[in-house]
This record gives sequence, structure tokens and C-alpha cells, in this order.
Amino acid sequence: MKKVLIIGSGPGGYEAALHARKEGYEVVLVEKDKIGGTCLNRGCIPTKALVEASYLYKKATGGKFGIKGATFDLSEIIAYRNKTTETLRKGLEQTLVKSGVQIVKAEAQFKDGKVIVNGKEESYDYLILATGSRPFIPPFEISTEILTSDNFTEGNFEVKDTIVVGAGVIGLEIGTALAMLGAKVTVIDIAPKILPAAPATVQSRLSAYLKKLGIKFMLNSKVEKIFEKDGKKAVALENGDVVTADQVLVAVGRKPNTEGLESLGLQIDRGFVVTDEYCKAKDNIFAIGDIATRAMLAHTASHHAQVVIDYITGKKRFKKEEFPIPQFVYTQPEAAWVGEFTGRAKKLVLGAVGKAIVDQTEGIIEIHTDGEYVKGFVMIGYGASEIVNLASVVITAKVTVEDIEKIIFAHPTLSEGFKMTLM
Amino acid sequence: MKKVLIIGSGPGGYEAALHARKEGYEVVLVEKDKIGGTCLNRGCIPTKALVEASYLYKKATGGKFGIKGATFDLSEIIAYRNKTTETLRKGLEQTLVKSGVQIVKAEAQFKDGKVIVNGKEESYDYLILATGSRPFIPPFEISTEILTSDNFTEGNFEVKDTIVVGAGVIGLEIGTALAMLGAKVTVIDIAPKILPAAPATVQSRLSAYLKKLGIKFMLNSKVEKIFEKDGKKAVALENGDVVTADQVLVAVGRKPNTEGLESLGLQIDRGFVVTDEYCKAKDNIFAIGDIATRAMLAHTASHHAQVVIDYITGKKRFKKEEFPIPQFVYTQPEAAWVGEFTGRAKKLVLGAVGKAIVDQTEGIIEIHTDGEYVKGFVMIGYGASEIVNLASVVITAKVTVEDIEKIIFAHPTLSEGFKMTLM
Repeated sequence: MKKVLIIGSGPGGYEAALHARKEGYEVVLVEKDKIGGTCLNRGCIPTKALVEASYLYKKATGGKFGIKGATFDLSEIIAYRNKTTETLRKGLEQTLVKSGVQIVKAEAQFKDGKVIVNGKEESYDYLILATGSRPFIPPFEISTEILTSDNFTEGNFEVKDTIVVGAGVIGLEIGTALAMLGAKVTVIDIAPKILPAAPATVQSRLSAYLKKLGIKFMLNSKVEKIFEKDGKKAVALENGDVVTADQVLVAVGRKPNTEGLESLGLQIDRGFVVTDEYCKAKDNIFAIGDIATRAMLAHTASHHAQVVIDYITGKKRFKKEEFPIPQFVYTQPEAAWVGEFTGRAKKLVLGAVGKAIVDQTEGIIEIHTDGEYVKGFVMIGYGASEIVNLASVVITAKVTVEDIEKIIFAHPTLSEGFKMTLM
Repeated sequence: MKKVLIIGSGPGGYEAALHARKEGYEVVLVEKDKIGGTCLNRGCIPTKALVEASYLYKKATGGKFGIKGATFDLSEIIAYRNKTTETLRKGLEQTLVKSGVQIVKAEAQFKDGKVIVNGKEESYDYLILATGSRPFIPPFEISTEILTSDNFTEGNFEVKDTIVVGAGVIGLEIGTALAMLGAKVTVIDIAPKILPAAPATVQSRLSAYLKKLGIKFMLNSKVEKIFEKDGKKAVALENGDVVTADQVLVAVGRKPNTEGLESLGLQIDRGFVVTDEYCKAKDNIFAIGDIATRAMLAHTASHHAQVVIDYITGKKRFKKEEFPIPQFVYTQPEAAWVGEFTGRAKKLVLGAVGKAIVDQTEGIIEIHTDGEYVKGFVMIGYGASEIVNLASVVITAKVTVEDIEKIIFAHPTLSEGFKMTLM
């Protein structure tokens, strides 16, 4: 039985482990921290829990639905968040163990072309590196304590005035949660627009919606210093302005954990492992997820995992990122997109979708087609993070616009907006 | 310009009107009540609003999310419900007017093969009958005031102990809303299972979840009398039992509005207009929606509308109900299904889906395949009513199981559970 050694148990590592077991390989999964990686423990899942709780609070105090007077207890929100991640982690551990994956809780080291685990060389037929990433702190002059996404998702924060440095996905999601719980939030970014990789519609419309939520944006603003001033945190900008608040979150991006990997003879380019279209870094060594792509998403990592195991078994059915990668930001409203945004665009405001009116009508659906096929999908609004998967199916499986016309969509739903937009 | 005369402005009638205008026909739309029909004014939309508000109340008092202490005000819930339907109705009216549909607010009558509107014969090249349905009250012996779904969705009810006669979609949705607001709810039905047309998984599992919500079920129970007793409402069953509560909702089904249509020379079978595969009842007369199918769903009616206009223009691209009809019940958890449930079934409990753990893990996904294609989808759980549309696309467009394996689904979402189930 050939042996697959996997370093890192995030969505790349654990999916690779499960796929490899299914194909009959011996699998050793090495993890230095908690099973599930950043996504489960400090990323996607805890952030979604924070947004979920704060959105519930907003809805249950706003009065729109005939419901009001709700209060929140931050320690209980954090307890709920913890329970969410623990439940998922436990389930994942059970699934891994049940499927026969050998989990080794240790930090892998890379020396002279070898993988060292617990002081001994660990052998393998195939090595899959899925070591992930960590928050990147730019070279600001920092003379006070700052928060990173790790602190936030671990619960070491308070609901008070906050400066968020970074208008990317992480900064906006945490900023949204804090704003909905009543904190004053200022988002600062050097870029002229939020979410640099998002389609223009999302950049312009979502920032307008988030402003309505009370978030203040300072774009085109370069941070120089973060320091303490009169018992507050202060951020000094290049233009001389100084902004103060009770806490500062720095969320400008993430850095791949590739230190030491060059000793395996891999090529590292600006921090990322260089891989081929099947995620191969060298011979029988593969690199997946955050260390191998700038699209640092949990589902990119899981997709890579699938590509690698498929390659190892000789099936080679598909190449990495051959298909569009859906993306979303879990703000309120949510925004999501997938595909290309160059074709003809049909648009529908969410206010025309019955189910949206039941919840919230802020938003729009925009579908790009070449006349025959759907090429791209952009949505801002409640449910966007789900409907983007429907769009991913339509684009990747080449369902035609005419097909969509014939398909019966249930009413009243948000996703029928997909069909309505095309009609 | 040929003229299309449409009677009834529900999802069948208004969709037919919009499609017909798009194809360049003159369109007269006759409506005796409010634009939007049952779905918009007394059905789907107001029910969803009631469930939405009551689910919010449940979540904002349960404490699970760190949020508690919310209160509700029924008159404000009803105001929210009214605002929801009014917003949608207004939008729909504007869309109709803007697209050039002539709306006539009057009751159409059918006499000697003619359509009479406001006392005059209304001419047409094509007549589309979309007169809908109304609550059906079985021949119980009723000597006290009862409620129907009309009263509930119009807001003439209270949050107090309720007997719901009928374990179909309407009874369960309203029962769920009342139970979540704190009322004691007893659902009585003559059938041995809830939701007679639903797959077995839904019948058994959903009733278990609804029991957990506090709903009491009395199945296999034939109602004989509804009367007043000591200031309460009482329901006497055939077995001699008498159940009492503060209000009684009778929601055992709906009756098609086909009275008078036989004078147009149409064939009526047990209350329904008999139509062919293109919804044609006779020559240039078509019948769509609730008067022509036992699948009395808004989206069946809109689908019929599409089939008819397609037929009239000569395109004839598809026949009525040639494709699977997704269905759902908006209880908590929701349940939804589409397709056939005979093939091999793969199952996934929602507790394995990260995003479900963030909200609620009650539920299951069940996908039936023939090995190559997806044939049927059943889901109980949060988001089921949206994901059923993804399933409808997959089944109708014949996306293969192998295709799904390759398609990238965003994480963490509920809909990635669709892919997870198949893997």
C-alpha cells in the first residue's frame, strides 16, 4: 500500500487525506495545531458565526420584522462561536479517524530533503504540502498592541470603536460584524477600492451598502504608524491624518507558510511554492492551497486536494483551477461572484424578487453571457454565497441560457432570481 | 397585433402577461381582487413573512447565538407582512404597466361561450384562464367561526392555542410560525403521515423535527365536528376524542376556481379544467396553474404561462411539466424535494456541513442517482428551499455526477452539501 504523507490539516490537507483513503492509500496527516486549519479554527467558520450572531442581533433590534429588544452578550457569542468550531472539528476528526487516516499531532520540519516528524524522518511515496498561511503584518511602525484576524476569530476582542486596516474579505467581514453589534468601525486601505479582486459592481455597490451600515471608509490611505495616544489606539496616515479608536485590527492579507520548504528542493517564488497544473512541485511532492495560490480560499485548497489525488491515481481528469472559482464575502448584504465579467450583462435588482422582499432587498444580480452560455455571475444580497454555487454549476457544466429558461425554479426563493435575471 | 386575454393575475396570469408582451401581443389582464393573486397576497409570500418573523423571534430568544430577550408585537409582525406584500404588489403592478399590459380591475364572467367583463363581451385571439383556487372547507359539521389560510395570511389571528386541521404545506407552515411564537399547536389530519405527496424521508424526519418544536400531531384522525365549548373551540374526532383550543385553522386543501368555465365549452374533471400537454383546453383557450393541475404551486403556474406563450408563438420548445417540479415546505427546518426518489440514495447529515453548524444542524440531504445522473434530491434543513433549485438545474440539464465532482463549490456554504453528498 503506497503511503501519502500530508502536512497540514486544513481544507486542503483533510480533503486530500479523505480522498487518498478512499483510493486505498495509507495516509499520515501531520498537524501542529488544531485539526481543520485556519478555515475551521480561525477563518471562515468562526467569522461566519460572528457575522451570523451580529446579523441576528441587528434584525432582532431593528424592529422591521415586528421583533425588538434583543440584547447580546459577547462572551456568549464567543461561546457559540467556540461550540460551532468544536462541533465541526470533532466531526472532522471522527471522519478522518473512521476513514483510517493516521493523525500525528506534531510540527513537521524540513531538512536536507527530508520530512522530520517528532525527531524522526517520515517516509512517503507521495508528499502533499498543505501548510497554509498566517496573517501578514506589513512593515508599519507599530508601538502598541494590535489585533489580527486570529485574535478576532479566537474571541480576544471587544465590541468598541475599531479601526480595521485592510478592506479585503477578512477586514470587511469582521468590520460588518462589529458594526452590526453597534461599534463604530473605520476601514482604512491604501487601495482606491474595497476588495481589489472583486468585480466593479461589488466594489462600488457593496461599499455603499456597508456605509449605510455605519462603516466609514478611508481609501487611498497609506498607514504609517500605529501607536498609543491618550489611552486610545492611533493610526497615522501618510497624509498626516491621525485616526483614533479603542482597538485596531490589521487585516491586510495573509502570508504563505513556506519557510523551510526550499530544503526539499522546491522552487519558491515570492513566498509561494511553484507548482504545475496538477499541483506538482517536484517528482512526488505536491503543494496545495494557500502556499500555492494567491486565491487563498478554503475551496481552492480542497479543489487542489482533489486534483492531486486524481493525478496520483492516474485519472488526471482535470487540472487545477481549470474551472471558475466562486468567491464570496460574508458581509451584510453578502456579495459573491464567479466566472468572467466581460460578456453582455443582464441585471435584476433584488427588490423584484419576492423572497428578497421578505428579508432584505438591498442588492442586485448581474449575469454575463455570450448569448448562449452564462460566463459570469455577480450578486450582492442575501443568499449570494449560496446562489454563487448554482452559478458555478451552470458555468462549469455549460448549462445554456435556453436550458435555464426551461428549468422550473421553486417560488418564492432567492435563487429564482437567477432565472429571472436571464429572462 | 393579436390580443391575449388573461383572467387572473396570480403567478400564472402575470407571467403569461409579461411573456406575451415580450412577444409583442396586445395583452388585457383581468383581475377581480388584488394584483398578484393568492401567492402574493394570501399565500406563499405572506406565509414566508410570518415564518421569517417567528423564526427570528425564536433565534433571538433561544440564547444559542448569544442573543436573547427579544419580544414580538403581533400587530407589527402583521404590518411587516403587509409591507412585504404591498412592496411586491406595487413593483409587480409597475412592471406590468411599464411593459404595456392593460390591467382591468373587474370580475370576468363566462356566459354562452363568451367572456364578459364589466358587462361587455371581451374579445380575444387567445384566452388564458388563470383563475386560481380558494381554501377548501370539507363537509365537517361546523357551528363556530373557523380560520382559513386567508385569515392567517391577512393577519386576522392571534398567537394562542391553535388546532390546525390539515398536515399539508399550508397547515405546517402556519403551525410552525405559531409554535415558534410560543403558541401550543396541534395538527390533526386524516392521513397517516404529514405532507402526503412528499418523499418518505421528509414525512418521517420533518414530523420528528416539528415535534421537537412543540407541535403535537394527531394523524389518522378524522374530524367530524368543529364547535364551541366552554368559550373554547372544540374539534370532535370520529374516534370520540374532543380536542379544544383557542382557535381552529382549517387547511385541508384548495379548490380550483372553475365555476362557469364549462359555459366556454371546456371539459371539467372533478373541478379541474382538462388541458393538453401545452395547457390547451380548447382551440384558442388555455388553462394554467391551480385550475389545471393538482400541483397547485406558484411556479407550476408560471411554468404553464411560459409553455402557453411559447406554444402560441409557435416555438413549442417544451411541454407542461416535462421537467421536474421542485417543491418545498417553509417550516423550520425547511424541507424540499425534486425529481424521482427511486435510484441509489446517497445521504449526508447536515451536521457534516460547516455552514449548517453555524446556523442549525437539524437535517439531512439525500440524493438519488442512477450512477451517472442525479435523478432526485431531498433535503430537510436550513436552506433547503434554495438548494432545491440547484438540484432542479442539475437534474433538468443532465449535469452528471462526475461533472459535480469537478465543479468548485464555495466554502463554507450550505449548498456545498450537495457536492459533499455525492462524493
